[in-house]
Amino acid sequence: MLPPLTQIPPEIAALGDYERFARERIAPASWAYLDSGAGDEWTMRENIAAFARLPLRPRLLRSMQGASTALNLFGCDLVAPILIAPTAFHALAHPDAELATVMAAGATGTCMVVSTQASLLLEDVASAAAGPLWFQLYIQPDRDFTEGLVARAEAAGYRALVITVDAPVNGVRNAEARAGFALPPHVRAVNLDGMRLPAAGAPGTLLFGTPLLESIPDWSAIAWLRERTRLPIILKGIVDPEDARRAIDFGADGIIVSNHGGRALDGIPAAIDLLPDVANAVARQVPVLMDGGVRRGIDVLRAQALGADAVLIGRPILHALATAGALGVAHALRVLMAEFELAMALTGCRTLADIDAGCLAPAPRR
Amino acid sequence: MLPPLTQIPPEIAALGDYERFARERIAPASWAYLDSGAGDEWTMRENIAAFARLPLRPRLLRSMQGASTALNLFGCDLVAPILIAPTAFHALAHPDAELATVMAAGATGTCMVVSTQASLLLEDVASAAAGPLWFQLYIQPDRDFTEGLVARAEAAGYRALVITVDAPVNGVRNAEARAGFALPPHVRAVNLDGMRLPAAGAPGTLLFGTPLLESIPDWSAIAWLRERTRLPIILKGIVDPEDARRAIDFGADGIIVSNHGGRALDGIPAAIDLLPDVANAVARQVPVLMDGGVRRGIDVLRAQALGADAVLIGRPILHALATAGALGVAHALRVLMAEFELAMALTGCRTLADIDAGCLAPAPRR
Amino acid sequence: MLPPLTQIPPEIAALGDYERFARERIAPASWAYLDSGAGDEWTMRENIAAFARLPLRPRLLRSMQGASTALNLFGCDLVAPILIAPTAFHALAHPDAELATVMAAGATGTCMVVSTQASLLLEDVASAAAGPLWFQLYIQPDRDFTEGLVARAEAAGYRALVITVDAPVNGVRNAEARAGFALPPHVRAVNLDGMRLPAAGAPGTLLFGTPLLESIPDWSAIAWLRERTRLPIILKGIVDPEDARRAIDFGADGIIVSNHGGRALDGIPAAIDLLPDVANAVARQVPVLMDGGVRRGIDVLRAQALGADAVLIGRPILHALATAGALGVAHALRVLMAEFELAMALTGCRTLADIDAGCLAPAPRR
Amino acid sequence: MLPPLTQIPPEIAALGDYERFARERIAPASWAYLDSGAGDEWTMRENIAAFARLPLRPRLLRSMQGASTALNLFGCDLVAPILIAPTAFHALAHPDAELATVMAAGATGTCMVVSTQASLLLEDVASAAAGPLWFQLYIQPDRDFTEGLVARAEAAGYRALVITVDAPVNGVRNAEARAGFALPPHVRAVNLDGMRLPAAGAPGTLLFGTPLLESIPDWSAIAWLRERTRLPIILKGIVDPEDARRAIDFGADGIIVSNHGGRALDGIPAAIDLLPDVANAVARQVPVLMDGGVRRGIDVLRAQALGADAVLIGRPILHALATAGALGVAHALRVLMAEFELAMALTGCRTLADIDAGCLAPAPRR
Repeated sequence: MLPPLTQIPPEIAALGDYERFARERIAPASWAYLDSGAGDEWTMRENIAAFARLPLRPRLLRSMQGASTALNLFGCDLVAPILIAPTAFHALAHPDAELATVMAAGATGTCMVVSTQASLLLEDVASAAAGPLWFQLYIQPDRDFTEGLVARAEAAGYRALVITVDAPVNGVRNAEARAGFALPPHVRAVNLDGMRLPAAGAPGTLLFGTPLLESIPDWSAIAWLRERTRLPIILKGIVDPEDARRAIDFGADGIIVSNHGGRALDGIPAAIDLLPDVANAVARQVPVLMDGGVRRGIDVLRAQALGADAVLIGRPILHALATAGALGVAHALRVLMAEFELAMALTGCRTLADIDAGCLAPAPRR
Repeated sequence: MLPPLTQIPPEIAALGDYERFARERIAPASWAYLDSGAGDEWTMRENIAAFARLPLRPRLLRSMQGASTALNLFGCDLVAPILIAPTAFHALAHPDAELATVMAAGATGTCMVVSTQASLLLEDVASAAAGPLWFQLYIQPDRDFTEGLVARAEAAGYRALVITVDAPVNGVRNAEARAGFALPPHVRAVNLDGMRLPAAGAPGTLLFGTPLLESIPDWSAIAWLRERTRLPIILKGIVDPEDARRAIDFGADGIIVSNHGGRALDGIPAAIDLLPDVANAVARQVPVLMDGGVRRGIDVLRAQALGADAVLIGRPILHALATAGALGVAHALRVLMAEFELAMALTGCRTLADIDAGCLAPAPRR
Repeated sequence: MLPPLTQIPPEIAALGDYERFARERIAPASWAYLDSGAGDEWTMRENIAAFARLPLRPRLLRSMQGASTALNLFGCDLVAPILIAPTAFHALAHPDAELATVMAAGATGTCMVVSTQASLLLEDVASAAAGPLWFQLYIQPDRDFTEGLVARAEAAGYRALVITVDAPVNGVRNAEARAGFALPPHVRAVNLDGMRLPAAGAPGTLLFGTPLLESIPDWSAIAWLRERTRLPIILKGIVDPEDARRAIDFGADGIIVSNHGGRALDGIPAAIDLLPDVANAVARQVPVLMDGGVRRGIDVLRAQALGADAVLIGRPILHALATAGALGVAHALRVLMAEFELAMALTGCRTLADIDAGCLAPAPRR
Repeated sequence: MLPPLTQIPPEIAALGDYERFARERIAPASWAYLDSGAGDEWTMRENIAAFARLPLRPRLLRSMQGASTALNLFGCDLVAPILIAPTAFHALAHPDAELATVMAAGATGTCMVVSTQASLLLEDVASAAAGPLWFQLYIQPDRDFTEGLVARAEAAGYRALVITVDAPVNGVRNAEARAGFALPPHVRAVNLDGMRLPAAGAPGTLLFGTPLLESIPDWSAIAWLRERTRLPIILKGIVDPEDARRAIDFGADGIIVSNHGGRALDGIPAAIDLLPDVANAVARQVPVLMDGGVRRGIDVLRAQALGADAVLIGRPILHALATAGALGVAHALRVLMAEFELAMALTGCRTLADIDAGCLAPAPRR
């Protein structure tokens, strides 16, 4: 494996360019863990392919004076509707781990969503932050531990909780299994130290009837959490309009439309294809974010046009992190922001409020 | 050719992973016979491709307490709606032949449908069974022989008859012809010993007007059989709603929607695409099963969502058999069941009754 | 280049298998002439691809007693609705040229349509025929010559005239140009000896305003011909419903839906996609045939299902001819007939009259 | 790099054939500048792919006497509805630069649209012209300079102004960035000497808030220009029907439907897919031209059928220029004209007025 770069070469002009460089800098088994999707990876591919099925509609000769990409989400001022998605174990990608990522977030004015499965203590990540942080967690079977984790996040200054609801059990992660992935000795989920885990079956055994399955959280767990924190609760992984409405009924302050980057259940449609129905059902009662397949500034525009308030970036951040640490992540974010500005300028959108379904091309007629 | 494996390597994490290993363990001409499809193999490819056109709709945060995949079909208790499809001559894949397959069926609680063209006597296969068996046959021009075969199956304890109706004559099997396939000396259809065959034309000659074609069974043959057995009769290869209704009128107790794995008539749609119309026409009067292209737990879920009571697995069983005998088949079945459980858990389905068309995603809107 | 084969190897099991063998036996420049299509060859590829978009609908358990593929077209008894399409210069494919083709036609009971641009005199081809022949021609600017050609065809016993109307000028034949094709010394259009040709521009110059363009035939030419022959007139190359109706008004006795094998105007839809509208417009007033892309027995069935009375085979005949002369052509025709019988048997069609739109699958529903 | 050819080899039979030859004759970084598209080049590919989705409808046996491709646009007599699109810096493709191109335009009776970013002074190009020229420009932030440029174009005899409105800022030009393109010392935008430029940010910095963005032209700039020239004003880059109507309201004399060859905003639909709605909105009040993806005579016909009065050719002109200078460009134009004549002849169109939506095939029915 090659060492991280200390400057960005001209070959890296777009987010997608980082993948090749990252693959040369991450151990194959770790790559299988970080980068692969569930099953046949149909959903993972669709996340990207679906964006290309949404052609744009430029409108020209509009004034761009005073143009801005700024927004406020849950009280956090953001320079652009682009956040860092929660992903596990940044130490697998770069020795600086989440410290590099959070430094890049601060340098670019981006909000980072820190994963429960970070390689570093959530408090240590927070200490290095120059901007707003959100904390991602699962409602664990060990409810006392969960409550303690929430309290730690609040104390460390995290501004919102992102509750992942679409992966109560691990997906069909064939690539990991084939590569024989296991966490290397120096990497573990330090934030989960001390948590009690329900017994799972032996590897390869079935799921139904195990304590693990019997203890997965249901809607009542959301109600339980709602009573235990003042922070905004954002449910991540909601893809169905009915579930979105129920989330609001149970007190969710936001929704992230996501198929877990295609890592949970293969066969879910692309996140961008799921977004419109959910946004429609939410009817602007709470913010709707999305992740999955965003690689270009025009993708950010497309997501906004279909009802997203902001997008989160997952794999490309890890690719940039592995390639060049904090420098890579900051560069990647800056490139995406610049592309997004250009996309707004060329579709005649001066502010985020100008971006609506009219930015997408109608189907061609003859 | 390589010998069978005695344990399953990590590279085999899914049913599809067996194909590459099997190909190294089956003689090329036998592979052409066992694995190829008719004509240009469009139907064979479609069987798999069509599943990927059916995206799923997860619903989250539902309780999975007491979840189960169990069902009862024709009086047989099954742990999951997954059966072993009838395929010919398992001896071409592994020296243990059908004995390995039936042993794996028993170990996993799966029902095996034994082919008339098994390499072993139907009685010998039955003796090794630990669970329910069904027997597949063609209504042969030699009706006395057919009646005798049915009587033997009944006597040996088979619990249902699967009558294949979609291949009264062989399909356009170009791959076999090109490979010059012929059964090796130690393999033959032992269950058909003593049967009278109508004269067919010389190889390469035409079909119309031959005694073979003149004697193919029609609907009256189903009525004839209905009067000669107490066992449930399941017609396999029905793909048309009108034919499905007629099958019920003629006394069929079940339907298997199947295009014979793309081995009979190339150009038939994918089995999963044919299923909904047939299921709709049957209107739950009798069980409807399907085979063709099932490779993943999400495919089992898709079939259930479109009206199937269960699915049958063909080629992957042969691939696993060739790769690692009974161990391979049992592993393959277990993997599929585990994937199916996961698919149910992530779509919020606690029992088979919860799986309906609502598990499939609607077409994306904008 | 390899010599022709004297027997058919098992690798050749279908019409498409001949292509590879033929390519090794035809000079590259001749191959470019015989096999290429116009422009980017989109139409040529579509001719084949479109068939695969027409899935079949099998209906089972129907009696096939007394099944037959026979028909009568323009007074000619044919064993199957499969004819040999007119193609130029068989001498480029095999030294026996059209004599080999016509011998194979006789041996299989197929009607051959002999091209005006045959390498041999139409009378010599007719002398070797054991079955019905039709003669293909263009209405040439030299009308006296055209009339003489028709008289010769009548005298030689041809049973119908096929008038090609879709190629009054040569198409954009880039492959020929790139290969620098020119007829070899021993091959020429012997049937056109003595014909006066209008001056064309120099190579690479424009078409409009040249005597060639000014003299291309229009509908009045059909009326002119109608008065000069007792033979049935079949217009080949009609693709538009309005043109089809006009053809009948001008006295045509039959229509061949064809895009000239994709050799005239690239961008025309696949012939099989054009067929239904034309057949509908003709409303069985005259027979409708089609050519373009037929490679399988199921394609013959599809064409019948969409309204064709018969199909013609072009390139595969040349491939078989180049591969093994008369033996190859006879084998190719026999293979196609056998496949067609099988397609009828597996869709439950006893005679051609049973083949209708009900043999095609409806679009899948969910 | 290879030197330009001095004659056209038979391998070059179509416009697309030039690409391979050109690539061997242009420096890689210059190739990246001249040939690449924006972003992932989806729009660039779509421009070509979309034409293939528009099948043609031939109508046969129509008289072609007196056929013609001629037209008059903005007072200019053109032999065919084919113009040379404005492209920058022909000196990157061939040492003769725009002099070669304009010579070829004259030799073939084609109108050339000269780019502001020509490698030569607009007056020098005009001096070498044998036919009509139009001048392309951006309305620059330096309005005095813009006005002077217009005056120079008028004085030099240009017959129309083509105002590019779809690229007020550069697109996401990753290929250029990766190749590290910079203009070689001997090539620069000589026509822009002396123009004042607003400060842009440093490379890689953001766009919003920069003087560059604040000064981009809006609709009032069109009104401003309208008062300062007698020449016809043609807006290039209009893709939206509303914008097209507004263009007419602001005094535009013509519209060019264009996505800048996929070089401005990736994600815009193919130009040919955008054309019908714009043509419909314009309702023949002013001429509508299009560029993007025209490679064949049938593409010219398709564009006419969907409402274009003429098409412009971009990249293929540069490819032909690099391959063989003026000879190459003249050959390419002649080939395209000859193909277009053939397309008209085979669809039965005697003049441009005969080409309408009826030349396109309806969707296939069953």
